[in-house]
Amino acid sequence: MSEFENLLIQYQSRASQHLEEILPLDNSVLSLAMRYSVLNGGKRLRPILVYLVGEIGEASEESLNTLAAAIELIHCYSLIHDDLPSMDNDDLRRGKPTTHKKFDEATAILAGDALQPLAFELLSDINDVDHRKLSIIKSVASACGHLGMVGGQIKDIHSDNVRDITSLDAMHFQKTGRLIQTSIETAGILSGLEAKEVELLKEYGSKIGLAFQIQDDIIDIESPSSISGKDQGSDEEQDKITYPSLAGLKESKLRAQDLAKEGKEILQLISKNTDNLSSLADYIVSRKT
Amino acid sequence: MSEFENLLIQYQSRASQHLEEILPLDNSVLSLAMRYSVLNGGKRLRPILVYLVGEIGEASEESLNTLAAAIELIHCYSLIHDDLPSMDNDDLRRGKPTTHKKFDEATAILAGDALQPLAFELLSDINDVDHRKLSIIKSVASACGHLGMVGGQIKDIHSDNVRDITSLDAMHFQKTGRLIQTSIETAGILSGLEAKEVELLKEYGSKIGLAFQIQDDIIDIESPSSISGKDQGSDEEQDKITYPSLAGLKESKLRAQDLAKEGKEILQLISKNTDNLSSLADYIVSRKT
Repeated sequence: MSEFENLLIQYQSRASQHLEEILPLDNSVLSLAMRYSVLNGGKRLRPILVYLVGEIGEASEESLNTLAAAIELIHCYSLIHDDLPSMDNDDLRRGKPTTHKKFDEATAILAGDALQPLAFELLSDINDVDHRKLSIIKSVASACGHLGMVGGQIKDIHSDNVRDITSLDAMHFQKTGRLIQTSIETAGILSGLEAKEVELLKEYGSKIGLAFQIQDDIIDIESPSSISGKDQGSDEEQDKITYPSLAGLKESKLRAQDLAKEGKEILQLISKNTDNLSSLADYIVSRKT
Repeated sequence: MSEFENLLIQYQSRASQHLEEILPLDNSVLSLAMRYSVLNGGKRLRPILVYLVGEIGEASEESLNTLAAAIELIHCYSLIHDDLPSMDNDDLRRGKPTTHKKFDEATAILAGDALQPLAFELLSDINDVDHRKLSIIKSVASACGHLGMVGGQIKDIHSDNVRDITSLDAMHFQKTGRLIQTSIETAGILSGLEAKEVELLKEYGSKIGLAFQIQDDIIDIESPSSISGKDQGSDEEQDKITYPSLAGLKESKLRAQDLAKEGKEILQLISKNTDNLSSLADYIVSRKT
C-alpha cells in the first residue's frame, strides 16, 4: 500500500472517530438510525478533502474535525434520502441494508432530517472567528439547497431533461459537485488561505467532483456488489442516464482521467505543497469502490 | 374584528409577503413545490411571535423579516415531511392537497430538504452582528434536531412510549414547543433584550406552545375539515394519543386555558409592554382553525 493510501486510511478513521464522538449516544430509534447511517464505513471523501486542504493552510485539528464531520453528516443524510423507495429505492448501501430497510421509511426520513441541523449546529460551534464561521455556514447551506445538492437530486430522479453530456454534467455538479467543492472551499476559509488560492481549489474541486461521479457510474457497471457494496447495475435497472449510457464506457473512462489531469494542472498554480491533493485526483479515478 | 386580530392579519401578510420574496421563482418542479408548500395560507404563528417580540425590543424590520421567514421555512418543511405516507399520511393541509399529493412523494421529501438549508442560509445573512447571528443559528439548529422537532416527531409516530400526560407533554414540547420557544428566544436575541427577559419569554413560549398543541388536538375533534382545512378526526383514525384521548375533551380545554393564563402571568414579570403577547395567549386557545 502506498504512503498516500495509508494517509487516506488514517484520515478516514480520524473522520469516523470524530463522527462517532459527536453523534447522539442514547438508545432511541432516531439516534440508532443516525449512527447506523453515518458509521457505516463510508469513504469519507469530503472529510479527506477538508483534511488535505487543512494540510496546506493553518487551521487547528479540532476545527478541521468539526468541519469535516458537519459536511459528512450532510452527505450521509443525502444518501439516506436518495436510497428511499420513492427515490432510488436501493436496498444496499456499502454492503449493508439501507436505513429504510434496516429501520423503516419514516425513521430513515427523520434520521436524515436530524443529521442536517446537527451539521449546522456543529458549524456554529467551530472554534474559529465569527465571520469565518458565518461564511462557512453560508457556503454549506447554499451547497446543499435547491441550487445545489437537493436541486441536483430532483433533476436526477426526474431525469427527462437530462439528455446529453452538458445537462448530465450540470446535474452532477449540483448533486455531488457542489458539496465536494464546498468541502474544499470551507476548509480553505478555515485554514486562512488567500481568496485566490481558495478559488483555484474550488476549480480543482469541480474537476475531481465530476471525475468522482463518472467513476461512480463506471463502478456501477463494472463492480459486483460484493466489492462496491451497492446493487450492481442498479443505474441501468432504473433506466438512469449515466456517462457510460450516453458516451460509452471507454469514453467515460477517458473523460474521468482527463478531468483528474485538469484538476492536477490547476493545483500547479498554487505555490504550496499540493502533492496529496494531486494524489487524490489519481486515486478518485482509479478506485473500484 | 378586534384591533389585535387586525394586527395578526397584518403580521401574517407581512410574513407571507417576505416568504414570497425569498423563495425561488423559477419553474423547476422543486421550486414550484417549495412555493406551493410555503405559500399556502398558513397561520404564521412563528413569524407572528418573532414580530411581537420584536415590538418590545430594538431590531430592524428587515432583520425580523429574515428571522421570521427562516423559522417559518423550517416549520413548513416539517409539515411536508409529517404529512408523508410513511408518517401521518395526510391528504389535506390547510384545505388543499398535501405536497406529496399535489406533486409526488420524492418531490415532497426534496422540497422539505431544500427548505431547511434555505433557512440556514437566510439566518447567516441576517443584517446583525456576527455573534448574535451565530447564537440564532445555533438555537434554531438545536430546536429542529434530534433533541427538538425531529426527535418529537419520531416519538409521535412511534408513540408506544407516549402513554400519559407527562410523556405526551414531553413529546409535544420537542415536536412543536421547541421551535415556538426558539422563535421567541431568537427574536429576543435579535432585539437586544436582556438575558433575563429572554429567559422569561422562553418560559412564556413553552406555556403557549403546549397550549397551542392541545388546542390543535381539540380542533381535530371539533372542527369539520371545511373549517380546519385538515381531515376531521384524523388523529383518532390513526389511533394517535392526544390530550383529549388521555384526559377527555373538557379537561383538555381547561388545561389549554390554564397554560395560556400561566403564560400571561409570566409576561407580568417583564417590565415592558407585553400586551400583544398576552393577547396572543388568549387567541391561541380560542382559535377554531
